[in-house]
Amino acid sequence: MDIFGAAEKRYSHKDLYLPNSVPLEHLEMIAKVGFAAPSGNNTQCVKFIILPDRASVQPLSELAPNCRPLQTAPAAIALLTTALGQKPRHNFEVEDYSASASVMLFAITALGYVSVWLDSLYFDEERQKATLAVLGAPESFNLRVVLPVGLPDGEGRRREKLTFEERVFYRKFGLPK
Amino acid sequence: MDIFGAAEKRYSHKDLYLPNSVPLEHLEMIAKVGFAAPSGNNTQCVKFIILPDRASVQPLSELAPNCRPLQTAPAAIALLTTALGQKPRHNFEVEDYSASASVMLFAITALGYVSVWLDSLYFDEERQKATLAVLGAPESFNLRVVLPVGLPDGEGRRREKLTFEERVFYRKFGLPK
Repeated sequence: MDIFGAAEKRYSHKDLYLPNSVPLEHLEMIAKVGFAAPSGNNTQCVKFIILPDRASVQPLSELAPNCRPLQTAPAAIALLTTALGQKPRHNFEVEDYSASASVMLFAITALGYVSVWLDSLYFDEERQKATLAVLGAPESFNLRVVLPVGLPDGEGRRREKLTFEERVFYRKFGLPK
Repeated sequence: MDIFGAAEKRYSHKDLYLPNSVPLEHLEMIAKVGFAAPSGNNTQCVKFIILPDRASVQPLSELAPNCRPLQTAPAAIALLTTALGQKPRHNFEVEDYSASASVMLFAITALGYVSVWLDSLYFDEERQKATLAVLGAPESFNLRVVLPVGLPDGEGRRREKLTFEERVFYRKFGLPK
């Protein structure tokens, strides 16, 4: 499936995942896509931790008991950033991890899996700290997002979306084709 | 070219662009990919303005006389966001536009074009305001990034990158395969 097909198929699977394992080769293909995303000032501040099996996802699952994707996902990739090396004028951590996470979601879809951008549960300071510890990450890093990877257990709910015409304009803001 | 091929080929083309025009169909394919990127809390705050020809890029070019891509690009897509509708707990404008811009860069590459993430020139308040006016956008919107689209005039400089092993770990932070 190419990137245009993935765009039509992608959605956030916030529900359960099947236990079928994901080949490490696929997880590496997904990480390589995130690795190739652009980086503000070329700091390349995003680090990726591949969690290749249920055993490696389990500790994150225990720290987020209400998160259905983490409770069941057979694999995941965590994205961390650091402010070290960012220029004082503008810190591009959020741009960088978002750029990586987004293309990874498309790559996950292209390979036939589902995922969801799990970030808000790590806004909780205690969970952030505990999860960084479980991942063995230095305290100078921020856990930004965890992307579960697997096959969907059930259809999954699609949220209502604006139309193309409501968001895409031609030549000037608000102008249709 | 699929998303994995695009990952190997993508780079930021900060130099000149050839005058060859880009079919509107291609620009719409690129915008559709950005449109399909995830959105925090599903606010879908990113709006896209397709600038389909040199005449529509020219006013932006005049406001950024030192920006070689804008001086020459035969087409571009501008991404704007608004804080309206964001929840007070967390504003996802930056995540959203970055998610869209990133997959669009991969789509641009997949179609055989080059681009570059032009954002920092719009940190300048005066240029931001003037460019919003040229685009006919309400003052409640922020111009976040302009993506030129076209064929490269010359090779373009690739920046030095960290290796995969320096950024991608297995099971725990810092652990190799």
